[in-house]
Amino acid sequence: MPADSNTPAALNDVKANEAETPSSRLVRFPAEDPLELDSGTRLGPWQIAYETYGTLNAEKSNAILVCHALTGDQYVASTNPVTGKPGWWQLMVGPGKPIDTDHYFVICANVLGGCLGTTGPATINPETGTPYGLDLPVITIRDMVRSQARLVDHLGIETLFAVIGGSMGGMQVLQWAASYPDRVFAAVPIAAAARHTSQNIAFHEVGRQAIMADPNWRGGNYIGDNVRPTKGLAVARMAAHVTYMSDESLHQKFGRNLQDRENLTFGFDADFQIESYLRHQGMTFVDRFDANSYLYVTRAMDYFDLSQEFDGVLPNAFEKTATRFCVMSFTSDWLFPTSESRRVVKALNAVAANVSFVEIESDRGHDSFLLDVPEMFETIQGFMTGAAHARGIPAPGEKA
Amino acid sequence: MPADSNTPAALNDVKANEAETPSSRLVRFPAEDPLELDSGTRLGPWQIAYETYGTLNAEKSNAILVCHALTGDQYVASTNPVTGKPGWWQLMVGPGKPIDTDHYFVICANVLGGCLGTTGPATINPETGTPYGLDLPVITIRDMVRSQARLVDHLGIETLFAVIGGSMGGMQVLQWAASYPDRVFAAVPIAAAARHTSQNIAFHEVGRQAIMADPNWRGGNYIGDNVRPTKGLAVARMAAHVTYMSDESLHQKFGRNLQDRENLTFGFDADFQIESYLRHQGMTFVDRFDANSYLYVTRAMDYFDLSQEFDGVLPNAFEKTATRFCVMSFTSDWLFPTSESRRVVKALNAVAANVSFVEIESDRGHDSFLLDVPEMFETIQGFMTGAAHARGIPAPGEKA
Repeated sequence: MPADSNTPAALNDVKANEAETPSSRLVRFPAEDPLELDSGTRLGPWQIAYETYGTLNAEKSNAILVCHALTGDQYVASTNPVTGKPGWWQLMVGPGKPIDTDHYFVICANVLGGCLGTTGPATINPETGTPYGLDLPVITIRDMVRSQARLVDHLGIETLFAVIGGSMGGMQVLQWAASYPDRVFAAVPIAAAARHTSQNIAFHEVGRQAIMADPNWRGGNYIGDNVRPTKGLAVARMAAHVTYMSDESLHQKFGRNLQDRENLTFGFDADFQIESYLRHQGMTFVDRFDANSYLYVTRAMDYFDLSQEFDGVLPNAFEKTATRFCVMSFTSDWLFPTSESRRVVKALNAVAANVSFVEIESDRGHDSFLLDVPEMFETIQGFMTGAAHARGIPAPGEKA
Repeated sequence: MPADSNTPAALNDVKANEAETPSSRLVRFPAEDPLELDSGTRLGPWQIAYETYGTLNAEKSNAILVCHALTGDQYVASTNPVTGKPGWWQLMVGPGKPIDTDHYFVICANVLGGCLGTTGPATINPETGTPYGLDLPVITIRDMVRSQARLVDHLGIETLFAVIGGSMGGMQVLQWAASYPDRVFAAVPIAAAARHTSQNIAFHEVGRQAIMADPNWRGGNYIGDNVRPTKGLAVARMAAHVTYMSDESLHQKFGRNLQDRENLTFGFDADFQIESYLRHQGMTFVDRFDANSYLYVTRAMDYFDLSQEFDGVLPNAFEKTATRFCVMSFTSDWLFPTSESRRVVKALNAVAANVSFVEIESDRGHDSFLLDVPEMFETIQGFMTGAAHARGIPAPGEKA
């Protein structure tokens, strides 16, 4: 039985309508079926690109939605066709992995505002016949979650067994739990927060200004001019990348080591390994990511403050929730520090929610959630098994 | 008696030879009297611009050299003629202040590679008749200190009563103590380190790449073309500025407060106060700082690792030192964290140096050393009084 047997056949192997979008499963919603956005706009037609792994069971009770981070994509456990690289979370998701695709049906969709098939600023605006650019309405985390809920509806799934994600993915997890409490049996926000802090916004603003300072950005209309603000986008990526690592991990990985030579060159080429590493990160990023999408998705994160739709009282976001939560943070993550996860846990405790909280010892910084951190995998595996028992479905290794 | 009575009259009121350099005291060294640089180059002719405050006593034993940070200048306690703003450390230096100019003779010089009168990349290269740009040799912290030593020679001062500075200023203090131990009676490195870490280098590299990505940078030759890479420099400043503040201070000062409006605009203008604050920091910076100087001075900091000239053994930098040290760090400074100051203190302890170490409770981040932090002032005042007694000169408020 193919992995996508529960996906309506007509949707298989549909190619997105942008020339540069790689093949992905896709649902197109016509103009008559728009998405209502937080900005007050009705977006339509619109589309959502996604991948699935594993098999949905007959009861449709084993579906796990994975939410990706800022520059992630739907290729959570399969090769990204743009980069040719393995899925971004293959350590976590796959046969025999903590999120076991021999057992669970895993869905991962490109976020609204993204650039890998879901409607975003590079999508053709049907009113003009040219890419939206900045004419796309600003997107919020709640809008992303709304679009995913429409996909889940389309797949005929009422309640997700779990929603899981790190960083911005974790913001979506929290929004799912708040917006659709009856549709989320278990929720795992990792290295996340219920709001973007002032410092988070500040780093994003630096990146956006770097993009907008690039003369090739052209007010967001670069695609029609067949140019790209690659230099600005590379600087934005470099600035962000520093925040994803801890001082300690940079020290261990690079220290003050010199690049391919014995001595300082007394010049402005990359003398230190950390410099060439960052330059490489910037240069490769521009091949896989759209600059306007970077503006939209960072903006969505900046706008995120879950308490706002609940009169500023975060516990109200989770009132009477029956969802089981596993909240996870990393000791060396200074971008989404443990204190922000604790804020979420306190709010959940205030409404007597079922919540586990684990702060994991790691010196790898915010990026820890993407890396080989055994304690994270063990925690997820244990939590998933407990949740499966609670839901009355067999855990991996158990018979139905 | 005028403040500069010990400066040879011929050097008073000399204007630098760049049109845009504001008036400052200046010493010009002819080509026959070059500065030997770490890069192996002999720089000459060269010049150093400086300000002094207070009066040098007859014994020339009351001179304090203040070393400025990355974007600082010689106007430590007097109005900066470019910005019209008060001196950058008027809380610390002035009549009746912890560094009391009624009592001490304070010298502050623009660093080598800077842009306020001392030789830097905007200085005319005598060989070409055009600004140096990237033809100026790369400068090190030790080169800066060498240039200051030449100024101190010129002023006829054998031993400085104290050398003090924060951030890059503190690096210079440590280099002074290592290079000229007999000429430094007391040393006060604040919020500093004996090396630039990988993370420090990474943030600087982001800023340099932002500048170099600006098409108006033109390989460093923008002055001749009468353009300036202002957008790139503004982005560099914004990225750096975030690192100077703590998460806590950003939270207290701005939080998620919106700018002049009640609601989110769903656009890319500055919605949050932190965004407009950062944009303002970027925009005003470009009026007072040269982009190439930013490259040179950040590079000097990146190259700084005091242990390197002592076989990688930091204590050897201070062997048999008679200098009295007061090392100071701030709890919320994540750019130059207490751990780096402790490294310095341990090295000083290893050679049985006379050292006080104070970690000051402050939530203002790296910028604390520039701000109104009473414990810092009290500590400096106490240390200065003790050092004055040790040197046999009266402390402020005492009779000679």
